Amino acid sequence: MKGKKKTTPNLVIFMDLVAEGDEVLLYLNDRKSWILKVERGKKFHTHKGIINIEDLIGKPYGSEVLTSLGVALKILPADYLDHLEKIARKTQIIYPKDMAYIALIANVRSGSRVVECGTGSGALTSYLANMVRPNGKVYTYEVREDFQVNAKKNLESLGLEKFVEFKLKDITKGIDETDVDAVILDMATPWLVVEEARKALRVGGRLVSFSPTINQVEKTVDAMEKAQFINIKAVELIMRGYKVKVNETRPDTIMVGHTGYIVSGRRC
Amino acid sequence: MKGKKKTTPNLVIFMDLVAEGDEVLLYLNDRKSWILKVERGKKFHTHKGIINIEDLIGKPYGSEVLTSLGVALKILPADYLDHLEKIARKTQIIYPKDMAYIALIANVRSGSRVVECGTGSGALTSYLANMVRPNGKVYTYEVREDFQVNAKKNLESLGLEKFVEFKLKDITKGIDETDVDAVILDMATPWLVVEEARKALRVGGRLVSFSPTINQVEKTVDAMEKAQFINIKAVELIMRGYKVKVNETRPDTIMVGHTGYIVSGRRC
Amino acid sequence: MKGKKKTTPNLVIFMDLVAEGDEVLLYLNDRKSWILKVERGKKFHTHKGIINIEDLIGKPYGSEVLTSLGVALKILPADYLDHLEKIARKTQIIYPKDMAYIALIANVRSGSRVVECGTGSGALTSYLANMVRPNGKVYTYEVREDFQVNAKKNLESLGLEKFVEFKLKDITKGIDETDVDAVILDMATPWLVVEEARKALRVGGRLVSFSPTINQVEKTVDAMEKAQFINIKAVELIMRGYKVKVNETRPDTIMVGHTGYIVSGRRC
Amino acid sequence: MKGKKKTTPNLVIFMDLVAEGDEVLLYLNDRKSWILKVERGKKFHTHKGIINIEDLIGKPYGSEVLTSLGVALKILPADYLDHLEKIARKTQIIYPKDMAYIALIANVRSGSRVVECGTGSGALTSYLANMVRPNGKVYTYEVREDFQVNAKKNLESLGLEKFVEFKLKDITKGIDETDVDAVILDMATPWLVVEEARKALRVGGRLVSFSPTINQVEKTVDAMEKAQFINIKAVELIMRGYKVKVNETRPDTIMVGHTGYIVSGRRC
Repeated sequence: MKGKKKTTPNLVIFMDLVAEGDEVLLYLNDRKSWILKVERGKKFHTHKGIINIEDLIGKPYGSEVLTSLGVALKILPADYLDHLEKIARKTQIIYPKDMAYIALIANVRSGSRVVECGTGSGALTSYLANMVRPNGKVYTYEVREDFQVNAKKNLESLGLEKFVEFKLKDITKGIDETDVDAVILDMATPWLVVEEARKALRVGGRLVSFSPTINQVEKTVDAMEKAQFINIKAVELIMRGYKVKVNETRPDTIMVGHTGYIVSGRRC
Repeated sequence: MKGKKKTTPNLVIFMDLVAEGDEVLLYLNDRKSWILKVERGKKFHTHKGIINIEDLIGKPYGSEVLTSLGVALKILPADYLDHLEKIARKTQIIYPKDMAYIALIANVRSGSRVVECGTGSGALTSYLANMVRPNGKVYTYEVREDFQVNAKKNLESLGLEKFVEFKLKDITKGIDETDVDAVILDMATPWLVVEEARKALRVGGRLVSFSPTINQVEKTVDAMEKAQFINIKAVELIMRGYKVKVNETRPDTIMVGHTGYIVSGRRC
Repeated sequence: MKGKKKTTPNLVIFMDLVAEGDEVLLYLNDRKSWILKVERGKKFHTHKGIINIEDLIGKPYGSEVLTSLGVALKILPADYLDHLEKIARKTQIIYPKDMAYIALIANVRSGSRVVECGTGSGALTSYLANMVRPNGKVYTYEVREDFQVNAKKNLESLGLEKFVEFKLKDITKGIDETDVDAVILDMATPWLVVEEARKALRVGGRLVSFSPTINQVEKTVDAMEKAQFINIKAVELIMRGYKVKVNETRPDTIMVGHTGYIVSGRRC
Repeated sequence: MKGKKKTTPNLVIFMDLVAEGDEVLLYLNDRKSWILKVERGKKFHTHKGIINIEDLIGKPYGSEVLTSLGVALKILPADYLDHLEKIARKTQIIYPKDMAYIALIANVRSGSRVVECGTGSGALTSYLANMVRPNGKVYTYEVREDFQVNAKKNLESLGLEKFVEFKLKDITKGIDETDVDAVILDMATPWLVVEEARKALRVGGRLVSFSPTINQVEKTVDAMEKAQFINIKAVELIMRGYKVKVNETRPDTIMVGHTGYIVSGRRC
């Protein structure tokens, strides 16, 4: 590899030329692109033709490679958002708009110790892991082993597994950790964990719960009030996309109208 | 100070007992609380009575202190969100919902090098600084010196100034940095910076712009298309708050209907 | 009176010159205007000065009158929306956006026989009365006599009282009418009236209910499903206002985020 | 026909038994239903089997008819909303939520004289025609003859054609009518008609324009300000649907995010 060194613990942040071992994004257009690992002796098949992967080595990022059918693909370094999108295509994940706000309102930061449930595909886990590193930790609870196995794989591919402790356990039976900075819930019955969360949180720590139905919100807020959380808030983030074109700008006709509600509060 | 050590570069994340030098939040209710620094020999005046600040020393976090008028205030460790709220009360800042999404869609992470303009009160700067530490850097441009002075003070109070380079310069005249991971614009004429941003960004780097009017969005998207950015998106995040009460749950009657639009794209 | 004749049952739709007995709107600006009845020998006092009302007689609509302080007020014929706004200023009414959609989804039309509960200030009653005339009828139920008295006054001032039958009765005790085309509910416990509504409606008739909380919606929909209504829908209309100015267009910062939910269905 | 008489000018509002000449709705479920005219000697084919239409005669409304495949269909009187939905399935129409609000904010009422452009499929025309009858009139402008022919057919099938004057004319070339109560525009370049609308409207009359893009809104508002309209407002109605189920209530995941903006103002 020529150019700058990889200095971050997970993904390549910058370099000049494609090197063996890099993860690159081959970009056809805004609707279609592929992430692949640069290895020698392999071919990559797309509906636009075939690429000899080792031909990428030494090419500058930003340049193009031609497939066997003569279609030009742009070569970009694959970054975290590319990986996230790839995970999102395979399993249902919390939308990025919600992930970002959950992490903010839980005050997750470098060094934070965070309990999360459930692990699911690990998308939110990866976002939290990235924020707490290098000295923090995400303790993520999951009852389904197949989900945990898949999530571990996703975290490893992002180089973030060392900031995560995977737990195969029903969180309603108790949280093992104490004095944590935040508890983040994305599960069917968050209200059953509120009292456990209170015990696990340090004074001033934050509980954040994400739920699709308003009934879950009602029960969770009620449980948080009973557990004497303060600053209890229930909000919803609605993302509206725009079709922007000079003199023809308008919101998208079809949109995602609802993902879920975010409830947050602070242990006192 | 007794209890755990301060290990994070800025704010106290956890400790058992209030110690001299701590920043504490005195909490009256969800509408009223105060941040103060624990120092000996000082008094703190509120409309609910006076407190001898040094009386706080040695009290456990989560306990209460009585004012001279007998009003109980809860003692919590002040955290980043408390400080952010304090800044928000004094100057207009980008809303947290927008800050969080801007940072995500710009792929700002530990180690990132980010150009920001304008600095304003430093609220977004502080959020970015927190995310890029300990090895990244935020280069923040501002033309008004009074804004910069205030922002520096805000960043210092958060212990985050070492991750920021403050620049008193009109960014439309050029960006000094190159190969940066992200350029984030919150300014009146973002379209005038698009070409400069393209030159400053590494391949695959992200440009994100926040604007209140749709006309700014139109001009910025147009400029980004001309500069051959890819994955150009314009979105808006609408936050809806809920009044949650068992059997009487409903969205807030009055809400903030608009803060701004977020345009993002990627240098190719 | 000179000009065209009044031909509609209530408000003046068109005429050339102000005549005795007319109801006029004196317009200062978009925030301030007054409705008054043109009578001889009276004065009208505003914070912008005094007007001799009879001076208006014979002036063309669209012209201006000067107050004693020299402020010019535009003279317009007062129409239904002006009256509605006046009622809205005094009591809380269903928002026009909701009134209009409720009437549409209830299929209220000239000739319809409609049951309404509660009467409240009569704002929705007036809108429905206007739509059913000249051969239809609105049967409006109310338990509070003071509300009914006020509503009657409002309907009379609009000339619409002859299309309304006011009933001082608790609708949960039963609906007197049968074979009605629509039942429209704006009350605290709509679910208690669903079975009565079913009995009162003709086959294919519509039940529409307006409620501020989601819990009311849940109970009403549940009751309608049990009463075998078809085409049951629950929606919410969110009105977003815009500040439009060439090159500075944006949604209003503060908006009404919620008025209520509209549930509708059809008797089968 | 047995039962009550048809007394309204267009659609049957109520009757007991299906009679020859009636228009009925055959209802399978909330997603599938058919409107048909009751005639002797005809068959009606569906994917659920065949019906001898004359078998419907004499059946009570609300009862069921069996298809040749033994599927039960409920028999309802077809009403205006059923017809509207049928038109909506064939051509793009203004959404009912927008139609209802446009009519309200234009103060369209029984007796009103309204200019509309363009006619399109006649859906909005039919809604306005229904509101102005029996003494009002809708003057509807259209440049495409095929649209006008189709709209006429739609209005005739609703029995509303006598309240409409169809005009095959480019409205930007001038409005023939004067002293009208409202001008309603649903066309690509509403701003080109603002001055003509001002001339056509009576004092106090209302101009309402519906447009999908924000740029159209900006130009229209600007033209209305120059033409000294008062009470100029630009709004957008967002309809959010809910999936209501006891204990699992939530907004629809996918929704129509945008239909168009509604600009209104009043001639002074």
